[in-house]
Amino acid sequence: MIYFDNSATTKTIPQVIEAITNNLSSESLYGNPGSLHELGTLAYKAYNEQLKAISSVLHCYENELYFTSCGTESANTAILGFITRNKRNGSSIISTRTEHKATLETLKKAEELGFNIKFVDVDSDGKPKLDMLESIIDDSVILMCFTHVNNETGSVLPLEEIVKIRNQKNRKIAIYLDMVQSVGKLPIDLKKMNIELGSFSGHKIHSVKGTGLLYVKAGVNINPYIVGGGQQNNMRSGTQSIVLAEAFRVALEEAYNNYDESHRGVHEINEYLRKELISREAKILSPDDAIDYVLNVSFKGFESETMLHCLEKYKIYVSTISACSSKTKKVSYVLLDMGIDRKVAGNSIRLSFSRFNTMAEAEEFIKAVDEIYKLFLL
Amino acid sequence: MIYFDNSATTKTIPQVIEAITNNLSSESLYGNPGSLHELGTLAYKAYNEQLKAISSVLHCYENELYFTSCGTESANTAILGFITRNKRNGSSIISTRTEHKATLETLKKAEELGFNIKFVDVDSDGKPKLDMLESIIDDSVILMCFTHVNNETGSVLPLEEIVKIRNQKNRKIAIYLDMVQSVGKLPIDLKKMNIELGSFSGHKIHSVKGTGLLYVKAGVNINPYIVGGGQQNNMRSGTQSIVLAEAFRVALEEAYNNYDESHRGVHEINEYLRKELISREAKILSPDDAIDYVLNVSFKGFESETMLHCLEKYKIYVSTISACSSKTKKVSYVLLDMGIDRKVAGNSIRLSFSRFNTMAEAEEFIKAVDEIYKLFLL
Repeated sequence: MIYFDNSATTKTIPQVIEAITNNLSSESLYGNPGSLHELGTLAYKAYNEQLKAISSVLHCYENELYFTSCGTESANTAILGFITRNKRNGSSIISTRTEHKATLETLKKAEELGFNIKFVDVDSDGKPKLDMLESIIDDSVILMCFTHVNNETGSVLPLEEIVKIRNQKNRKIAIYLDMVQSVGKLPIDLKKMNIELGSFSGHKIHSVKGTGLLYVKAGVNINPYIVGGGQQNNMRSGTQSIVLAEAFRVALEEAYNNYDESHRGVHEINEYLRKELISREAKILSPDDAIDYVLNVSFKGFESETMLHCLEKYKIYVSTISACSSKTKKVSYVLLDMGIDRKVAGNSIRLSFSRFNTMAEAEEFIKAVDEIYKLFLL
Repeated sequence: MIYFDNSATTKTIPQVIEAITNNLSSESLYGNPGSLHELGTLAYKAYNEQLKAISSVLHCYENELYFTSCGTESANTAILGFITRNKRNGSSIISTRTEHKATLETLKKAEELGFNIKFVDVDSDGKPKLDMLESIIDDSVILMCFTHVNNETGSVLPLEEIVKIRNQKNRKIAIYLDMVQSVGKLPIDLKKMNIELGSFSGHKIHSVKGTGLLYVKAGVNINPYIVGGGQQNNMRSGTQSIVLAEAFRVALEEAYNNYDESHRGVHEINEYLRKELISREAKILSPDDAIDYVLNVSFKGFESETMLHCLEKYKIYVSTISACSSKTKKVSYVLLDMGIDRKVAGNSIRLSFSRFNTMAEAEEFIKAVDEIYKLFLL
């Protein structure tokens, strides 16, 4: 089996499984962190230890992080929490049409609440047009929502330039950054990044599905989204799950402990595949400076889904458009927005790698592509 | 160690730990259920199998259940999702002041959205006054929010009578039922119960913290709360976690597989403790017909927290008011609303049992209480 669909989700690593088993089997970790007795205190301490370790990897303060159930919940909370709390300061939000559905659908909710969404166009490399961004920032804007690494193309946001523009035009505008596809694959230094809000997901970095993280910079006020018992400084109610917090922490630490080696391996795979695929007249849709972990490629004569199912016969698993919504079977709005021809976009598949993929798998993949072409197009 | 705080949270059972380990180690279960390839299909199937098994235990249809991250998220989604979708039909909500914070805080949000909350008083047994309920139902009411079993006293809602009153007055009023403390401890037959919305939590029935369930009766329309990729029939976005779904399913099945035996054991413990405590002039605050799993008791001369910490010295873990908010150190609003004297309420602790508690533990508890009285009050 060759799994090239790591941007959709990843396999949980043994270190995480072991941490979960140990945590759940422990006699001292199952208390409710809200309980006043010893067992509650132990749970609360363990919970804070996870926060501390994670904040050290992401270079932020512990009290800037909140555990959530997924990247999507983090996106909902960050965006809706910020705009409902800060609506006195303005009524417009800037974003792109190439965001993940977690952002786009949340922005629809924002629209229903009376906010005005201004979309910046993206260039053929998937990056927002900075001159257009500059021109649409006005006093009504309170928030800008962007994605650090696009999930379909691996396109990297020019964050520094965007922050610079924001700082020049209006320092009060907050930036929400979706880091679901960048965490573990790019350095994340929240202190230096100068953003106000951010989201992370565990299951894209070999943790468990059902784990997410929300970043809210100290001093930034947002309304909680899930309300109740007031857990996590009243920002996210619901009994804290130490085991899921730990599952996130272990996966995150493993990602950055293996960062360089992983990059070397995936870079070699990506470079090899680009070369081989181009020589076979496939069209690479990921920009040249995309991260190595994602390679979007369009196969001549094969619709996305056909190629996906052909590869499936070889036990090679890839993705058409964003897996999260792929059951809708539409041509990728991300690729169309980059100005890619509808037919080319309709033939695209996304290969996405992890540090567990090998060059041997990449070679197998090319062999399979050759066989598929031989079988179906000759 | 004697853990009498099972209404705050429970220890994960080995069957759940084993299911989690097997699930996460499997080569065929880690795909994204939204992916089109084989691995996605396998994940999707496994996901539906969990739903099917759970719906069979709870006596409902599979498509009436949605996985969430916790009972609190389920409460937020059920209440806010229903009222925002059905606001054309009315603008009032009926509830009691003795609900869990997950409901009360969500009702505050509902108020901010322009809804009017009408509170029914509760009797000294913790049950809503039915004549008052009948008198405040009018055409403006669209939803009633109640708790099946109160988390602090074990008081059981007269659900049948409430449903009857609703059916007589206005069948269009929906009922949301918090079943977090009743699932596994009372029979749950959603088909017969005649409610429209419900919430469940995994960690109160020996599953993992971070697992919850939302029930929405077929034909009832609610808006989704967490929006994004459109997973779970667009009702709850975010990549489905099959491992957490399975963790919930296993715990639920185990609860009902051990139902009778568990009830017998806990009944014996409860009966014994009531008798012994009453003979020591402690005041039982749980009503006589409360479920056996919860025993709220007020100790003369000991404030809640003092008794909690005294018992802690014996490694006996109990709770003061609802653990979820116990850090606020206030006298229980639930007990006060039942008309219990502030001083008596301020001396109350909650013992909450599971099928893993034993009579030997109950006897140890009484011994400890006797020693504490001897040490501190003589």
